[in-house]
Order: sequence, then structure tokens, then C-alpha cells
Amino acid sequence: MTATPATRFPEWMASIQRRTEEALARLLPPASIAPTRLHDAMRYATLGGGKRVRPLLAFAAGEIAGASLERIDTLACALECIHVYSLVHDDMPCMDDDVLRRGKPTVHVQYDDATALLVGDALQTLAFELVSQRGLFDDAQRQLRAAAVLAKASGSRGMAGGQAIDLASVGHALSREELEFMHIHKTGALIRAAVQLGALAGDLADAELERLDHFGKCIGLLFQVVDDILDATADTATLGKTAGKDAANEKPTYVSIIGLNAARELADELATEARNTLTPFGNAASRLQDITQYIVSRPF
Amino acid sequence: MTATPATRFPEWMASIQRRTEEALARLLPPASIAPTRLHDAMRYATLGGGKRVRPLLAFAAGEIAGASLERIDTLACALECIHVYSLVHDDMPCMDDDVLRRGKPTVHVQYDDATALLVGDALQTLAFELVSQRGLFDDAQRQLRAAAVLAKASGSRGMAGGQAIDLASVGHALSREELEFMHIHKTGALIRAAVQLGALAGDLADAELERLDHFGKCIGLLFQVVDDILDATADTATLGKTAGKDAANEKPTYVSIIGLNAARELADELATEARNTLTPFGNAASRLQDITQYIVSRPF
Repeated sequence: MTATPATRFPEWMASIQRRTEEALARLLPPASIAPTRLHDAMRYATLGGGKRVRPLLAFAAGEIAGASLERIDTLACALECIHVYSLVHDDMPCMDDDVLRRGKPTVHVQYDDATALLVGDALQTLAFELVSQRGLFDDAQRQLRAAAVLAKASGSRGMAGGQAIDLASVGHALSREELEFMHIHKTGALIRAAVQLGALAGDLADAELERLDHFGKCIGLLFQVVDDILDATADTATLGKTAGKDAANEKPTYVSIIGLNAARELADELATEARNTLTPFGNAASRLQDITQYIVSRPF
Repeated sequence: MTATPATRFPEWMASIQRRTEEALARLLPPASIAPTRLHDAMRYATLGGGKRVRPLLAFAAGEIAGASLERIDTLACALECIHVYSLVHDDMPCMDDDVLRRGKPTVHVQYDDATALLVGDALQTLAFELVSQRGLFDDAQRQLRAAAVLAKASGSRGMAGGQAIDLASVGHALSREELEFMHIHKTGALIRAAVQLGALAGDLADAELERLDHFGKCIGLLFQVVDDILDATADTATLGKTAGKDAANEKPTYVSIIGLNAARELADELATEARNTLTPFGNAASRLQDITQYIVSRPF
């Protein structure tokens, strides 16, 4: 369960994914308590899958910072609650109207639209309940800072703002700069927050926190560029969600704006920048190096 | 602007409502920064009206606790952000499908469904951004406690949970106990949190915090009983929202379950209990006494 440097990356990743699944199962309200249908739907949306990229980043950054695994469990769950809430709302008929997510019917299909709305709402609240939990950090000041980082990354000047720009962009031509602005918010902000939360959970100095934050910014954009490449090249069965939907929805992507080859080159550049940022941490950053490689080369 | 005990209640209320409006205008992101349409819609939903019951309670409780008005400004805004997000989502077509709120077209009518969804999402996040703001409290531990109170009151075991039970109750017969359970969550939890946040912003001891919390619980339920009475007896123009919609939607209310007279008696009982709870605070609680009277006798 614990992550020793000697563990190979695939095993480490599997152990963190399992650990996150267990923590979520423990920290989500049980489906047996009222309102039971809402709690059941929250668990349906959150448990049983997902790559858990944000938890992986939080645990890997926490390793550099010497953070306790139990503290990261809670932060990782908060990050996943925010991420999953955004997926549930994004899949709704008034947004992307998607029926498949992680290989399962989306929440509004499996339950109904009103339940999906409330599931997203309640998962967002749960994230802030978790991060403001009494005694999570020894240093309350630092815990407040983590809560503020999560809130800023999630709101109208972060993830939700990116969604709004995404929405406004459908059927419109975007420049590469505008696309980058959108992605830095929509996907990048929460990925960046994942690295920052893991880092804050330990005792790094501000200069090191800033260095990791720059890494987080690079990896956030990298993740989205790779996502765009995959949406254009992989099939639905491999993705576990509807493939080619960006093109079908006339959504601008890196592939549609700069082309497939240039998008691949951009991914390489971002990965190099991310790796170089980690160099001063030496071996302590090996998990973050591994995750960078994983994001570049993931088949789905 | 400041609230001296000598100020009569109507003037005090007006000054707090004005103060809250100004604080919201200042703390909401300006409509001039990206994403502009989202920020514009967030301001449309939040500014220009509302009784500001939760801010009134937070300021009145803060007065007992000796809290600074500036600190309560931020907490009051956080409370209103949560309250307004719940209204915006509740009005959406997949929920109550309402077109009028505070005398204006609802957000999904004025903008569109997707924007209404994101407005609610981003207002919720903003609430937690505000409450976790660096330096809001001198005592970080106490600030975390305030953030946790707000989160618990808003989530699946609070307000959002009440919404879910409300949803499940449409067209079903509820017992009075079930109705009470629903209302304690749906409306009561956030009203109770408003009192608690105001109280936490000062330096009250735990016994006094608990006493005020009991008051908050009474007043939360009282507010909903009066709301049900008004929905059954007032007209749309007076309410500024669609009247009689609970009956039209076959939603159980206190009036439909125990009848109008018994609902009025219940309101009196709850008001008495609330007033008695405040007695030990003496004159320091005069604003909370006034608010209790206002809630019982408000014409809209």
C-alpha cells in the first residue's frame, strides 16, 4: 500500500488508485443514510474507476514534501470530488449531453437530470468539507491555504470559468492563444491544484512550492493536449467515453487548430519543460517524472 | 452604516441589506474580466435584491459575539453565494422549472440552461473561496471551523440533501416528521449556519455558541413554516416569485399537511422557543429578537 521508491511505476500507480478508491468509499456518505438516492448516485458517479490522475499527482508531490499518506488521502478525495462533479455536470443534456463516462451510463442517464444536478452540487460541497476537516493539518494556516488553492482552481477564474469559455467557443474559431487560455482554466487549474495540495501537505519552503507549481502548470496543459490528440485518434471502446465528440460538437481542440503533428510536438515540448522543472529535486521527484512520462504515452 | 443598538430595526435592516449588496458587488468577480458572460450572469443572479435573511442573521449574531463588521461582510457574502446558487439550480427546468425570481426572469431564462448550471457551480465555489480567504480570521483554527460549518450545512447532509428529499417527495404523501426532516435540511441548515458563522466570527465560548446554534435551528424551521404559509396565501406580485407553486407542483407543505391554522400555531411556538433561547443574552440579542419578529410577521 505504501509507496517506496523501489516500487515500479505501474505497481505504484495501481496502489495509489486502489488507495484512493478505498478512501473515497470511506469518505463519501454511505448510501444507507438519507437522502439515500442522492448518496447512492454520488457513489455511482465517483467510485469504480477513473485514472485518478489528480490523486496520483497529489501523492507524488506529497512524497517530495514528506507529507503523511493519510493527509493526502483526504486531499486526493477532495480533488476527485471536484473533478467528478465537473464531469457529472458537463455530461448533462444542457452541456455536452453525453451518455457514457468511464464505460458506464452517465449519472443523468442512470438516475435523472435533477439527481445529476444535485450530485454535482453535493460533490463540490463535500470537497470543501473534506479540505476544511478539523485536524487534517497540524498547521491550520497551511490548511486554509490548501482550501483556498482548491477553491481558486475550481471557480469562475479556474475550472468553471474554463467550462464557460469552452461553452462559448462551440462553433467559433479560436486562436491558439484563446484555446490555451481555455485549457489552462478548464483542465489545467485543477491538475495544478493537485500538485500544489500534495506539496502543501508537507513542509516545503515557498521557493520549492513555486517550482512545483510551475511543474503543475506544464503538466496541466500537457494533459489537455494529449487528451485532444486521443479524442482525435482513439476509439470509444478504448477511451471509455465517446470518442471524436469534440469534432462532432465542432469544439476547437489543439488538433483542429494546429494539426495532429504540431500537437504532438507541443506535447513533447511541455513534457520536456515539466521534466526540467523537476531536476533540482533529484530522485525525490521520480514519481512526478514517471507521471509525466505516463501522461505523454498513455494509450487512453 | 454601522449598527448601533439605538438604530430602529427597519433602518438597521436596510443598512445591513445595503452593506451586503455593496460587499457582494465588491467581492463578486467583475463582469469585465473573462469569462465575462459567466461573471455577468453571476452578478445578475446575486445582486439587486433579496431579503438577505442570512446576512441579517450573521450580522446580528456577530453583534452578540463582538465580531468585526468587515469579517461579517465576507461571511455574509459567502452565505448569500450558497443561497443564490441553490436558487439558481432549483429554478432550472430539470428542477422546479421556474421563470421568476426576486421579480426578475430566472438565470436560465435570462441567459441559458448551461450558464445557469455554471453560475450555480461557480457561486458555490466562490463561497468557499471567501470563507478560506487568507487573514479573514486572526485565529486560523476558528476560520477552518467556520468553513467546515458552511460546508456541512450546504452539502448532501444539509441543504443539497434537503433538495433531494424535496424532489423525491413530489406527488407523495409525507408525514409531518418527514416534512420537518426535509425542511430542517433544505432551508434550515443554511439559516442555522448563518447564525453560527456570525457567532464564530467573534470570541464566544462554546456554551454560548451552542445556545445560539439552538436559536438558529428554531429560526430555520420557523422561516420555512412561514414560507409555506405565504406560498399558500400571498400572490405572485407580493412574493416576487411564483405564488402557489408548491400546491401546483403537488409539493407537501406545512399548510397541506397540518392545515393553515395549525401551521400558524406552529410558527408561534417556534418563535417563542427562539425568543426564550435568546433571553440569557439580554439586550445584546435585541437584533436577533427583532429578526425573529420580522420573520413571523413579514408580509412577503
